[in-house]
Amino acid sequence: MKRYIHLLLFILLMSSPLLLSAQVVDQEVHHVVFQVTKGEVADQNKAIAQLNNILKALPNAEIEVVCHSGALPMVLKEKSQVLEGIVKLQSRGVVFAACENTMRRAKASKEDLVDGAITVPSGLAEIIIKQEQGWAYIKAGN
Amino acid sequence: MKRYIHLLLFILLMSSPLLLSAQVVDQEVHHVVFQVTKGEVADQNKAIAQLNNILKALPNAEIEVVCHSGALPMVLKEKSQVLEGIVKLQSRGVVFAACENTMRRAKASKEDLVDGAITVPSGLAEIIIKQEQGWAYIKAGN
Amino acid sequence: MKRYIHLLLFILLMSSPLLLSAQVVDQEVHHVVFQVTKGEVADQNKAIAQLNNILKALPNAEIEVVCHSGALPMVLKEKSQVLEGIVKLQSRGVVFAACENTMRRAKASKEDLVDGAITVPSGLAEIIIKQEQGWAYIKAGN
Repeated sequence: MKRYIHLLLFILLMSSPLLLSAQVVDQEVHHVVFQVTKGEVADQNKAIAQLNNILKALPNAEIEVVCHSGALPMVLKEKSQVLEGIVKLQSRGVVFAACENTMRRAKASKEDLVDGAITVPSGLAEIIIKQEQGWAYIKAGN
Repeated sequence: MKRYIHLLLFILLMSSPLLLSAQVVDQEVHHVVFQVTKGEVADQNKAIAQLNNILKALPNAEIEVVCHSGALPMVLKEKSQVLEGIVKLQSRGVVFAACENTMRRAKASKEDLVDGAITVPSGLAEIIIKQEQGWAYIKAGN
Repeated sequence: MKRYIHLLLFILLMSSPLLLSAQVVDQEVHHVVFQVTKGEVADQNKAIAQLNNILKALPNAEIEVVCHSGALPMVLKEKSQVLEGIVKLQSRGVVFAACENTMRRAKASKEDLVDGAITVPSGLAEIIIKQEQGWAYIKAGN
Protein backbone atom coordinates (compact mmCIF):
# COMPACT_ATOMS: atom_id res chain seq x y z
CA MET A 1 0.00 0.00 0.00
CA LYS A 2 2.77 2.40 1.06
CA ARG A 3 4.54 1.55 -2.18
CA TYR A 4 1.53 2.63 -4.22
CA ILE A 5 1.33 5.91 -2.38
CA HIS A 6 5.00 6.51 -3.11
CA LEU A 7 4.43 5.70 -6.76
CA LEU A 8 1.41 7.98 -6.87
CA LEU A 9 3.36 10.78 -5.25
CA PHE A 10 6.21 10.27 -7.70
CA ILE A 11 3.89 10.45 -10.72
CA LEU A 12 2.16 13.50 -9.27
CA LEU A 13 5.42 15.32 -8.69
CA MET A 14 6.82 14.47 -12.12
CA SER A 15 3.70 15.54 -13.94
CA SER A 16 3.07 18.71 -11.93
CA PRO A 17 6.31 20.58 -11.46
CA LEU A 18 4.27 23.61 -10.43
CA LEU A 19 3.40 21.92 -7.16
CA LEU A 20 7.08 21.94 -6.28
CA SER A 21 8.97 24.87 -4.91
CA ALA A 22 11.31 26.80 -7.20
CA GLN A 23 13.55 24.51 -9.22
CA VAL A 24 17.29 24.47 -9.57
CA VAL A 25 18.11 24.96 -13.25
CA ASP A 26 21.80 24.17 -13.00
CA GLN A 27 24.77 24.27 -10.64
CA GLU A 28 27.15 25.97 -13.08
CA VAL A 29 28.84 29.27 -12.33
CA HIS A 30 26.98 32.15 -14.01
CA HIS A 31 27.92 35.82 -13.96
CA VAL A 32 25.19 38.40 -13.74
CA VAL A 33 25.30 42.17 -13.49
CA PHE A 34 21.93 43.25 -12.11
CA GLN A 35 20.98 46.91 -12.60
CA VAL A 36 18.60 48.60 -10.14
CA THR A 37 17.52 52.17 -10.91
CA LYS A 38 14.36 52.60 -8.86
CA GLY A 39 14.09 52.94 -5.10
CA GLU A 40 10.48 52.90 -3.96
CA VAL A 41 9.71 50.27 -1.32
CA ALA A 42 7.99 48.10 -3.94
CA ASP A 43 11.03 48.38 -6.21
CA GLN A 44 13.38 47.39 -3.41
CA ASN A 45 11.27 44.37 -2.48
CA LYS A 46 10.97 43.40 -6.13
CA ALA A 47 14.74 43.54 -6.64
CA ILE A 48 15.38 41.33 -3.60
CA ALA A 49 12.73 38.83 -4.74
CA GLN A 50 14.21 38.71 -8.24
CA LEU A 51 17.72 38.15 -6.86
CA ASN A 52 16.45 35.32 -4.67
CA ASN A 53 14.72 33.77 -7.68
CA ILE A 54 17.95 33.86 -9.66
CA LEU A 55 19.84 32.16 -6.83
CA LYS A 56 17.16 29.49 -6.44
CA ALA A 57 17.50 28.59 -10.11
CA LEU A 58 21.25 29.17 -10.40
CA PRO A 59 22.66 28.60 -6.88
CA ASN A 60 26.25 29.22 -7.99
CA ALA A 61 25.56 32.45 -9.86
CA GLU A 62 27.99 35.26 -9.11
CA ILE A 63 25.86 38.40 -8.98
CA GLU A 64 26.79 42.06 -8.75
CA VAL A 65 23.88 44.37 -8.03
CA VAL A 66 24.60 47.87 -9.35
CA CYS A 67 22.44 50.44 -7.55
CA HIS A 68 22.41 53.82 -9.22
CA SER A 69 20.11 56.70 -9.98
CA GLY A 70 16.86 56.32 -8.01
CA ALA A 71 18.02 53.05 -6.45
CA LEU A 72 20.66 54.47 -4.11
CA PRO A 73 18.33 54.47 -1.05
CA MET A 74 18.20 50.67 -1.25
CA VAL A 75 21.84 50.50 -0.14
CA LEU A 76 21.80 53.38 2.34
CA LYS A 77 21.81 52.21 5.98
CA GLU A 78 19.27 54.80 7.05
CA LYS A 79 16.91 54.39 4.12
CA SER A 80 17.04 50.81 2.94
CA GLN A 81 13.75 48.93 3.33
CA VAL A 82 15.35 45.57 2.62
CA LEU A 83 18.34 45.41 4.96
CA GLU A 84 17.61 41.86 6.01
CA GLY A 85 17.24 40.72 2.41
CA ILE A 86 20.54 42.37 1.48
CA VAL A 87 22.40 40.74 4.37
CA LYS A 88 21.06 37.30 3.42
CA LEU A 89 22.04 37.77 -0.22
CA GLN A 90 25.51 39.04 0.78
CA SER A 91 25.98 35.88 2.86
CA ARG A 92 25.47 33.96 -0.37
CA GLY A 93 28.14 36.02 -2.15
CA VAL A 94 25.98 38.66 -3.85
CA VAL A 95 27.87 41.97 -4.12
CA PHE A 96 25.96 45.24 -3.75
CA ALA A 97 27.64 48.18 -5.49
CA ALA A 98 26.63 51.84 -5.20
CA CYS A 99 27.37 54.35 -7.98
CA GLU A 100 29.70 57.13 -6.81
CA ASN A 101 28.16 59.58 -9.29
CA THR A 102 24.78 59.02 -7.66
CA MET A 103 26.30 59.17 -4.15
CA ARG A 104 27.93 62.51 -4.93
CA ARG A 105 24.63 64.00 -6.08
CA ALA A 106 22.89 62.61 -2.98
CA LYS A 107 25.74 63.79 -0.71
CA ALA A 108 26.11 60.25 0.59
CA SER A 109 29.44 58.90 1.83
CA LYS A 110 30.78 55.37 2.03
CA GLU A 111 29.92 55.33 5.72
CA ASP A 112 26.26 55.78 4.81
CA LEU A 113 26.18 52.53 2.85
CA VAL A 114 24.94 49.22 4.23
CA ASP A 115 27.77 47.08 5.59
CA GLY A 116 29.66 45.20 2.94
CA ALA A 117 28.46 47.32 0.02
CA ILE A 118 31.17 48.48 -2.36
CA THR A 119 31.23 51.57 -4.57
CA VAL A 120 31.97 51.88 -8.28
CA PRO A 121 32.97 55.17 -9.93
CA SER A 122 30.09 54.93 -12.42
CA GLY A 123 27.23 52.45 -12.25
CA LEU A 124 26.73 52.50 -16.01
CA ALA A 125 30.44 52.07 -16.76
CA GLU A 126 30.47 49.11 -14.38
CA ILE A 127 27.55 47.48 -16.24
CA ILE A 128 29.27 48.09 -19.59
CA ILE A 129 32.59 46.59 -18.44
CA LYS A 130 30.95 43.55 -16.87
CA GLN A 131 29.10 42.81 -20.11
CA GLU A 132 32.37 43.08 -22.03
CA GLN A 133 33.76 40.49 -19.65
CA GLY A 134 30.92 38.12 -20.56
CA TRP A 135 28.53 38.80 -17.71
CA ALA A 136 24.80 38.61 -18.50
CA TYR A 137 22.86 41.85 -17.98
CA ILE A 138 19.50 42.06 -16.26
CA LYS A 139 17.66 45.32 -15.81
CA ALA A 140 15.59 44.91 -12.64
CA GLY A 141 11.97 45.63 -12.06
CA ASN A 142 8.87 46.04 -14.13
CA MET B 1 6.39 58.27 -70.95
CA LYS B 2 5.74 55.16 -68.82
CA ARG B 3 9.49 54.71 -68.65
CA TYR B 4 9.94 58.15 -67.15
CA ILE B 5 7.30 57.48 -64.56
CA HIS B 6 9.06 54.27 -63.61
CA LEU B 7 12.36 56.14 -63.38
CA LEU B 8 10.74 58.85 -61.29
CA LEU B 9 9.19 56.27 -58.98
CA PHE B 10 12.51 54.51 -58.66
CA ILE B 11 14.32 57.73 -57.69
CA LEU B 12 11.55 58.64 -55.30
CA LEU B 13 11.67 55.26 -53.59
CA MET B 14 15.45 55.21 -53.34
CA SER B 15 15.66 58.69 -51.89
CA SER B 16 12.73 58.36 -49.51
CA PRO B 17 12.93 55.07 -47.68
CA LEU B 18 10.42 56.42 -45.23
CA LEU B 19 7.72 56.19 -47.84
CA LEU B 20 8.28 52.45 -47.96
CA SER B 21 6.95 49.97 -45.47
CA ALA B 22 9.33 48.55 -42.87
CA GLN B 23 12.62 47.42 -44.38
CA VAL B 24 14.35 44.08 -44.18
CA VAL B 25 17.75 44.67 -42.58
CA ASP B 26 19.14 41.22 -43.26
CA GLN B 27 18.19 37.60 -43.75
CA GLU B 28 20.72 36.18 -41.31
CA VAL B 29 19.74 34.07 -38.32
CA HIS B 30 19.67 36.17 -35.15
CA HIS B 31 18.91 35.00 -31.63
CA VAL B 32 16.92 37.23 -29.33
CA VAL B 33 15.64 36.74 -25.81
CA PHE B 34 12.86 39.26 -25.32
CA GLN B 35 11.85 40.04 -21.72
CA VAL B 36 8.31 41.19 -20.93
CA THR B 37 7.53 42.21 -17.36
CA LYS B 38 4.40 44.33 -17.68
CA GLY B 39 0.91 43.16 -18.48
CA GLU B 40 -1.44 46.07 -19.00
CA VAL B 41 -3.29 46.01 -22.34
CA ALA B 42 -1.01 48.75 -23.69
CA ASP B 43 2.06 46.76 -22.62
CA GLN B 44 0.78 43.62 -24.31
CA ASN B 45 0.05 45.46 -27.55
CA LYS B 46 3.43 47.18 -27.39
CA ALA B 47 5.25 43.87 -26.95
CA ILE B 48 3.46 42.31 -29.95
CA ALA B 49 4.19 45.39 -32.10
CA GLN B 50 7.87 45.33 -31.11
CA LEU B 51 8.14 41.62 -31.91
CA ASN B 52 6.56 42.20 -35.33
CA ASN B 53 9.01 45.05 -35.96
CA ILE B 54 11.95 42.79 -35.16
CA LEU B 55 10.67 40.11 -37.56
CA LYS B 56 10.09 42.67 -40.32
CA ALA B 57 13.71 43.78 -40.07
CA LEU B 58 15.20 40.37 -39.28
CA PRO B 59 12.83 37.81 -40.84
CA ASN B 60 14.97 34.86 -39.76
CA ALA B 61 15.40 35.94 -36.16
CA GLU B 62 14.82 33.19 -33.61
CA ILE B 63 12.99 34.86 -30.74
CA GLU B 64 12.09 33.61 -27.28
CA VAL B 65 9.68 35.86 -25.40
CA VAL B 66 10.08 35.40 -21.64
CA CYS B 67 6.95 36.54 -19.81
CA HIS B 68 7.42 36.91 -16.08
CA SER B 69 6.38 39.12 -13.19
CA GLY B 70 3.52 41.42 -14.28
CA ALA B 71 3.55 40.01 -17.82
CA LEU B 72 2.08 36.60 -17.05
CA PRO B 73 -1.49 37.60 -18.07
CA MET B 74 -0.26 38.10 -21.63
CA VAL B 75 0.19 34.33 -22.00
CA LEU B 76 -2.84 33.23 -19.97
CA LYS B 77 -5.70 31.96 -22.19
CA GLU B 78 -8.35 33.71 -20.14
CA LYS B 79 -6.55 37.02 -19.74
CA SER B 80 -4.41 37.61 -22.81
CA GLN B 81 -5.47 40.66 -24.84
CA VAL B 82 -3.26 39.69 -27.76
CA LEU B 83 -4.13 36.08 -28.49
CA GLU B 84 -4.28 36.65 -32.23
CA GLY B 85 -0.93 38.42 -32.25
CA ILE B 86 0.66 35.58 -30.28
CA VAL B 87 -0.71 32.91 -32.64
CA LYS B 88 0.62 34.79 -35.67
CA LEU B 89 4.05 35.18 -34.09
CA GLN B 90 4.11 31.51 -33.05
CA SER B 91 3.39 30.54 -36.67
CA ARG B 92 6.59 32.38 -37.54
CA GLY B 93 8.55 30.42 -34.96
CA VAL B 94 8.47 32.82 -32.01
CA VAL B 95 8.45 30.91 -28.71
CA PHE B 96 6.44 32.28 -25.77
CA ALA B 97 7.76 31.14 -22.38
CA ALA B 98 6.06 31.68 -19.01
CA CYS B 99 8.05 31.84 -15.77
CA GLU B 100 7.09 29.03 -13.37
CA ASN B 101 7.97 31.18 -10.34
CA THR B 102 5.42 33.74 -11.49
CA MET B 103 2.88 31.03 -12.35
CA ARG B 104 3.21 29.54 -8.88
CA ARG B 105 2.53 32.90 -7.22
CA ALA B 106 -0.45 33.47 -9.54
CA LYS B 107 -1.70 29.88 -8.98
CA ALA B 108 -1.68 29.35 -12.74
CA SER B 109 -1.14 25.92 -14.26
CA LYS B 110 0.25 24.88 -17.63
CA GLU B 111 -3.33 24.31 -18.80
CA ASP B 112 -4.03 27.99 -18.26
CA LEU B 113 -1.39 29.05 -20.79
CA VAL B 114 -2.12 29.94 -24.39
CA ASP B 115 -1.61 27.00 -26.73
CA GLY B 116 1.98 26.39 -27.66
CA ALA B 117 3.49 28.41 -24.82
CA ILE B 118 6.26 26.69 -22.88
CA THR B 119 7.32 27.22 -19.28
CA VAL B 120 10.77 27.88 -17.84
CA PRO B 121 11.64 27.32 -14.16
CA SER B 122 12.82 30.92 -13.77
CA GLY B 123 12.31 33.70 -16.29
CA LEU B 124 15.40 35.56 -15.14
CA ALA B 125 17.59 32.44 -15.18
CA GLU B 126 16.37 31.77 -18.72
CA ILE B 127 17.38 35.28 -19.83
CA ILE B 128 20.80 34.89 -18.19
CA ILE B 129 21.48 31.52 -19.82
CA LYS B 130 20.37 32.69 -23.26
CA GLN B 131 22.73 35.66 -23.06
CA GLU B 132 25.56 33.33 -22.09
CA GLN B 133 24.76 31.36 -25.23
CA GLY B 134 25.17 34.50 -27.32
CA TRP B 135 21.57 35.60 -27.62
CA ALA B 136 20.89 39.34 -27.73
CA TYR B 137 18.77 40.69 -24.85
CA ILE B 138 15.93 43.14 -25.31
CA LYS B 139 13.87 44.42 -22.40
CA ALA B 140 10.44 45.19 -23.84
CA GLY B 141 8.36 48.29 -23.46
CA ASN B 142 8.89 51.89 -22.54
CA MET C 1 53.79 74.44 6.72
CA LYS C 2 52.81 74.37 3.05
CA ARG C 3 54.20 70.85 2.95
CA TYR C 4 51.88 69.73 5.72
CA ILE C 5 48.92 71.25 3.97
CA HIS C 6 49.85 69.36 0.83
CA LEU C 7 50.18 66.15 2.81
CA LEU C 8 46.85 66.79 4.50
CA LEU C 9 45.20 67.47 1.17
CA PHE C 10 46.73 64.32 -0.28
CA ILE C 11 45.43 62.17 2.59
CA LEU C 12 42.04 63.81 2.36
CA LEU C 13 41.79 63.19 -1.37
CA MET C 14 42.95 59.59 -1.12
CA SER C 15 40.57 58.74 1.67
CA SER C 16 37.57 60.59 0.27
CA PRO C 17 37.24 59.90 -3.42
CA LEU C 18 33.71 61.20 -3.20
CA LEU C 19 35.03 64.71 -2.77
CA LEU C 20 36.53 64.45 -6.23
CA SER C 21 34.64 64.99 -9.43
CA ALA C 22 33.62 61.96 -11.50
CA GLN C 23 36.50 59.55 -12.03
CA VAL C 24 37.92 58.13 -15.21
CA VAL C 25 37.62 54.36 -15.01
CA ASP C 26 39.77 53.60 -18.03
CA GLN C 27 40.89 54.96 -21.38
CA GLU C 28 40.12 51.80 -23.38
CA VAL C 29 37.73 51.76 -26.32
CA HIS C 30 34.32 50.49 -25.26
CA HIS C 31 31.27 49.97 -27.46
CA VAL C 32 27.85 50.77 -26.10
CA VAL C 33 24.41 50.68 -27.67
CA PHE C 34 22.19 52.88 -25.52
CA GLN C 35 18.43 52.41 -25.90
CA VAL C 36 16.06 55.30 -25.17
CA THR C 37 12.32 54.61 -25.31
CA LYS C 38 10.80 57.45 -23.31
CA GLY C 39 10.51 61.07 -24.33
CA GLU C 40 9.24 63.22 -21.47
CA VAL C 41 11.49 66.17 -20.61
CA ALA C 42 12.75 64.35 -17.50
CA ASP C 43 13.54 61.26 -19.60
CA GLN C 44 15.46 63.33 -22.15
CA ASN C 45 17.49 65.07 -19.44
CA LYS C 46 18.15 61.75 -17.73
CA ALA C 47 19.41 60.17 -20.95
CA ILE C 48 21.81 63.05 -21.60
CA ALA C 49 23.08 62.94 -17.99
CA GLN C 50 23.63 59.18 -18.20
CA LEU C 51 25.52 59.52 -21.49
CA ASN C 52 27.75 62.20 -19.98
CA ASN C 53 28.41 59.96 -16.98
CA ILE C 54 29.47 57.11 -19.26
CA LEU C 55 31.87 59.40 -21.14
CA LYS C 56 33.34 60.76 -17.90
CA ALA C 57 34.17 57.23 -16.76
CA LEU C 58 35.03 55.82 -20.20
CA PRO C 59 36.24 58.80 -22.27
CA ASN C 60 36.96 56.65 -25.32
CA ALA C 61 33.64 54.82 -25.36
CA GLU C 62 32.00 54.62 -28.77
CA ILE C 63 28.29 55.11 -28.10
CA GLU C 64 25.28 54.76 -30.36
CA VAL C 65 22.06 56.11 -28.88
CA VAL C 66 19.04 54.38 -30.41
CA CYS C 67 15.91 56.51 -30.00
CA HIS C 68 12.69 54.67 -30.73
CA SER C 69 9.12 54.37 -29.53
CA GLY C 70 8.34 57.24 -27.13
CA ALA C 71 11.87 58.65 -27.42
CA LEU C 72 11.63 59.98 -30.96
CA PRO C 73 10.87 63.58 -29.84
CA MET C 74 14.32 63.73 -28.25
CA VAL C 75 15.92 63.75 -31.72
CA LEU C 76 13.31 65.89 -33.49
CA LYS C 77 14.56 69.44 -34.16
CA GLU C 78 11.23 71.00 -33.21
CA LYS C 79 10.60 68.93 -30.10
CA SER C 80 13.93 68.05 -28.53
CA GLN C 81 14.42 69.53 -25.06
CA VAL C 82 18.11 68.65 -25.02
CA LEU C 83 19.47 70.03 -28.29
CA GLU C 84 22.54 71.51 -26.64
CA GLY C 85 23.30 68.28 -24.81
CA ILE C 86 23.00 66.30 -28.03
CA VAL C 87 25.32 68.66 -29.93
CA LYS C 88 27.97 68.40 -27.19
CA LEU C 89 27.75 64.61 -27.14
CA GLN C 90 27.94 64.47 -30.95
CA SER C 91 31.12 66.57 -30.81
CA ARG C 92 32.57 63.77 -28.68
CA GLY C 93 31.61 61.15 -31.26
CA VAL C 94 28.30 59.94 -29.84
CA VAL C 95 25.94 58.88 -32.66
CA PHE C 96 22.20 59.52 -32.30
CA ALA C 97 20.05 57.15 -34.35
CA ALA C 98 16.30 57.42 -34.90
CA CYS C 99 14.15 54.35 -35.64
CA GLU C 100 12.49 54.58 -39.10
CA ASN C 101 9.55 52.46 -37.91
CA THR C 102 8.85 55.04 -35.21
CA MET C 103 9.42 57.94 -37.64
CA ARG C 104 6.92 56.47 -40.09
CA ARG C 105 4.25 56.20 -37.40
CA ALA C 106 5.00 59.78 -36.28
CA LYS C 107 5.08 61.01 -39.91
CA ALA C 108 8.54 62.43 -39.30
CA SER C 109 11.07 62.75 -42.11
CA LYS C 110 14.86 62.80 -42.03
CA GLU C 111 14.72 66.60 -42.37
CA ASP C 112 12.88 66.75 -39.05
CA LEU C 113 15.80 65.17 -37.18
CA VAL C 114 18.43 67.11 -35.27
CA ASP C 115 21.53 67.74 -37.37
CA GLY C 116 23.90 64.83 -37.54
CA ALA C 117 21.37 62.21 -36.39
CA ILE C 118 21.22 59.07 -38.51
CA THR C 119 18.30 56.70 -39.03
CA VAL C 120 18.15 52.93 -38.69
CA PRO C 121 15.43 50.79 -40.31
CA SER C 122 14.47 49.28 -36.95
CA GLY C 123 15.67 50.49 -33.55
CA LEU C 124 15.29 47.04 -32.00
CA ALA C 125 17.07 45.28 -34.89
CA GLU C 126 19.92 47.78 -34.51
CA ILE C 127 20.24 46.97 -30.79
CA ILE C 128 20.21 43.23 -31.53
CA ILE C 129 22.88 43.48 -34.23
CA LYS C 130 25.15 45.69 -32.12
CA GLN C 131 24.99 43.20 -29.25
CA GLU C 132 25.90 40.40 -31.65
CA GLN C 133 28.93 42.48 -32.63
CA GLY C 134 30.00 42.61 -28.99
CA TRP C 135 28.58 45.98 -27.99
CA ALA C 136 27.33 46.34 -24.41
CA TYR C 137 23.61 47.13 -24.06
CA ILE C 138 22.22 49.74 -21.70
CA LYS C 139 18.51 50.45 -21.43
CA ALA C 140 18.25 54.10 -20.40
CA GLY C 141 16.23 55.64 -17.64
CA ASN C 142 14.59 54.53 -14.45
